[in-house]
Amino acid sequence: MSKGITSQKENYATWYTDVIIKSGLADYGPVKGTMVIKPYGYELWENIKLALDQMLKDSGHVNAYFPLFIPKSFFASEAKHVEGFAKECAVVTHHRLCTTNDGKSVEVDPESKLEEEVIVRPTSETVIWSMYKKWIQSYRDLPLLINQWANVVRWEMRTRLFLRTTEFLWQEGHTAHETDEEAEKETLKILDIYQKLSEDHLAMPVLTGIKTDSEKFAGAEKTYSIEAMMGDKRALQAGTSHNLGQNFAKAFGVTFQDRENKEEHVYATSWGVSTRLVGGVVMVHGDDNGLVLPPKIAPIQVIVIPIAKTDEDKKTIMNHVDNIVSQCLEKGIRVKVDNSNNSPGFKFNEWELKGVPIRLEIGLRDISKQEVILARRDIEEKQSVKLNKLVKSIHNLLDEIQNNILLKATNFRDKNTFRVNSYKEFKNTISNTGGFIRCGWDGTIETETAIKNETKATIRCIPFNSNPKDLKCIYSGEDAIHEVIFAKAY
Amino acid sequence: MSKGITSQKENYATWYTDVIIKSGLADYGPVKGTMVIKPYGYELWENIKLALDQMLKDSGHVNAYFPLFIPKSFFASEAKHVEGFAKECAVVTHHRLCTTNDGKSVEVDPESKLEEEVIVRPTSETVIWSMYKKWIQSYRDLPLLINQWANVVRWEMRTRLFLRTTEFLWQEGHTAHETDEEAEKETLKILDIYQKLSEDHLAMPVLTGIKTDSEKFAGAEKTYSIEAMMGDKRALQAGTSHNLGQNFAKAFGVTFQDRENKEEHVYATSWGVSTRLVGGVVMVHGDDNGLVLPPKIAPIQVIVIPIAKTDEDKKTIMNHVDNIVSQCLEKGIRVKVDNSNNSPGFKFNEWELKGVPIRLEIGLRDISKQEVILARRDIEEKQSVKLNKLVKSIHNLLDEIQNNILLKATNFRDKNTFRVNSYKEFKNTISNTGGFIRCGWDGTIETETAIKNETKATIRCIPFNSNPKDLKCIYSGEDAIHEVIFAKAY
Repeated sequence: MSKGITSQKENYATWYTDVIIKSGLADYGPVKGTMVIKPYGYELWENIKLALDQMLKDSGHVNAYFPLFIPKSFFASEAKHVEGFAKECAVVTHHRLCTTNDGKSVEVDPESKLEEEVIVRPTSETVIWSMYKKWIQSYRDLPLLINQWANVVRWEMRTRLFLRTTEFLWQEGHTAHETDEEAEKETLKILDIYQKLSEDHLAMPVLTGIKTDSEKFAGAEKTYSIEAMMGDKRALQAGTSHNLGQNFAKAFGVTFQDRENKEEHVYATSWGVSTRLVGGVVMVHGDDNGLVLPPKIAPIQVIVIPIAKTDEDKKTIMNHVDNIVSQCLEKGIRVKVDNSNNSPGFKFNEWELKGVPIRLEIGLRDISKQEVILARRDIEEKQSVKLNKLVKSIHNLLDEIQNNILLKATNFRDKNTFRVNSYKEFKNTISNTGGFIRCGWDGTIETETAIKNETKATIRCIPFNSNPKDLKCIYSGEDAIHEVIFAKAY
Repeated sequence: MSKGITSQKENYATWYTDVIIKSGLADYGPVKGTMVIKPYGYELWENIKLALDQMLKDSGHVNAYFPLFIPKSFFASEAKHVEGFAKECAVVTHHRLCTTNDGKSVEVDPESKLEEEVIVRPTSETVIWSMYKKWIQSYRDLPLLINQWANVVRWEMRTRLFLRTTEFLWQEGHTAHETDEEAEKETLKILDIYQKLSEDHLAMPVLTGIKTDSEKFAGAEKTYSIEAMMGDKRALQAGTSHNLGQNFAKAFGVTFQDRENKEEHVYATSWGVSTRLVGGVVMVHGDDNGLVLPPKIAPIQVIVIPIAKTDEDKKTIMNHVDNIVSQCLEKGIRVKVDNSNNSPGFKFNEWELKGVPIRLEIGLRDISKQEVILARRDIEEKQSVKLNKLVKSIHNLLDEIQNNILLKATNFRDKNTFRVNSYKEFKNTISNTGGFIRCGWDGTIETETAIKNETKATIRCIPFNSNPKDLKCIYSGEDAIHEVIFAKAY
């Protein structure tokens, strides 16, 4: 391909990386496993962030900021949590560099060894609950609904841009409540917000449900997740919401005086989505020509390409372009003009690769007809639009594209979600066809593990509309306890 | 004092910490030198951030995100930079924890030692210029105007909330240019933006000027700064903008093909402001009753306090309050109601401490007159305002408060800026009166160092309107090369 992008069919993983690098979303950082989010990718993330931040604020949450560094000892406080999170993390042991004897290099000053090592947060439950202990005394201090936008670090061996990197950006919410019911309600409220973010803004349809015990968050009572199907039919866990019960409150001794004047442990939730969502957007909508960005979060919604043969033509055209741009900006449309000296063909390719929803072409002939041409990124379709109806037409078209790509992704997922009648068919589907398999499960970890080992498919979730009645476990043949979704996952 | 705040007169440093803790801006984190920015403080920072981010975007800058971790070797690349920044920093040496033999604790897994240690960024020049090397080939790739909002770490021995903490939040801009002139223009443009942010939004008047060689950024050709006077007459360096010349381009080998097809090193700038600005706001405007927040960045601009004697009264009043609140919100006023069961006196104290610009009191008698009372935080003044003119009155009053506190701070600074005629007078002023001293300097590092050692005062900047003509150096008596500002600084 002229763009230098491997086709999806040839190698999906390479296609993914090619698209991200060539479209300018991100680049590799110098330390293994780290990523640079380039301006185009960061603006996409900012738009996702803005949408979610507003939803969180509208539902009563406030932002705060907790330290990057956590004392090592905190990780021993919650037994399950330590197993899950204290494993692969960045450990700070010294606090000074000094110049080497030859004066040419730097080395770690052995004198600067810390008394207690500090850990770069892999997630902030421990440091936050150590603070909540100071802040919570009575039921009057509850609920505490705090969110944080931050970077976290998990020392990953196999990394992939946006999906799994040593450092990533995310938001992590940490709430404290009087009762288990309230905590559960919060957990589900957030899951609902994540679903809205994903479907209404990212145009990425998701299944919602609860995780099995073996897949839940280290330290949680229950973990809910949103699960999306990528273009290669694998599942992406795109966000999780945890009901932590009293586990962290007990680990950090966080109690409160309840309404009956009794001392009780606080109930907790935590939840997060990350820059992984950007990877989801790439894989749900992208094609062999590059990104296809949902209009609601696209950094550029309309790219204007003047089609001029001479410099004089260009001057005339640019007068109209300036006018179009101000009209669009005034109405909140994110518009940009490609006024470079590259050929129209080059520009078409470039902005297609970057996934801009609408390309606006304007030449002398269009102007003479008081028209411009709007070309869609999501489907091959162009239309002429009258200049005096331009803004309205663009607004409508952006909506149409947003709806269309959601519909397309939903159809794709539904078409690739299967019900199977035997474990043989299950294995066949997973290894040859791919996609989601909806089937009965006997509820045992043995079955779950066996299927995972034999097929690499995991239970993505027990969906809310699960109905095990009359179902048998696809593996053991026992009566099904749950109807679940199996898939290979990122 | 009933609020438990030490008076400024008694101990300014304790007053500062008391105000921050009691008003809920921040708290100490568990690792020494770290800070938790609590929701009220974080919202203040968000408002500052929003204002600056908009100004940066309006002037053509884009945001991106670079990794937290920098290879140790990078710090040896720019000779002066390493001296300044590789000293006190957090060094990651291992990437795994494991459970101790007794199963009760965790320890660093010695097997997980990194081949090359990584440094938690104290500032990002090195990692960014290692990327710019990949991104810049030709003059067509320039200018590159990138900003990043991030956390950075400098291992500080003596820390103070917001002013100096091991980890802090900031923005750091890193730009690349074709010519020295362009880089210089950018450096000054940013300084101007910082001044506007500080004066127009934070109501904090600043002096602008250039740093002396000994005070400039490690690796810069020139450092400009904005300098503000705090309530104790000390200086706070509130933001810096650096012209880095070709230093980093040379250290990282970043060249470009110029318009004459010659290979040239790129010219660079970098600049930043941090959460330190919050500390500035506290100290410039605060008083013995607590914070005094500038309306433009105050998380809450108007606090509504219903004054009711009975539950029935409260009901009637709350009907009016709801109406007032929706009117305010509609017009973009950040309003909150204190509907708790605390006494009005308690509430007055509480919101005074939190520095809310306007307190709106409303009782039955006010309602009968179709009025409410507006009380200012900046001066002791109350006024009755007609309900049908409320929003307009609030808008006007917020503007008036914003202007008044800027004027007050400016007058305070000017009143405490002195011209002295002898070094004796200089020493006397610095140690007894405090404030800024504007005087001649012979331009030598010897004089600068001697004065610093003898008085702890440093040259804050050579102001732009400096005029050394006819001035003698206050220390050596030689002809002055520059007119400078001396002060003790944070």
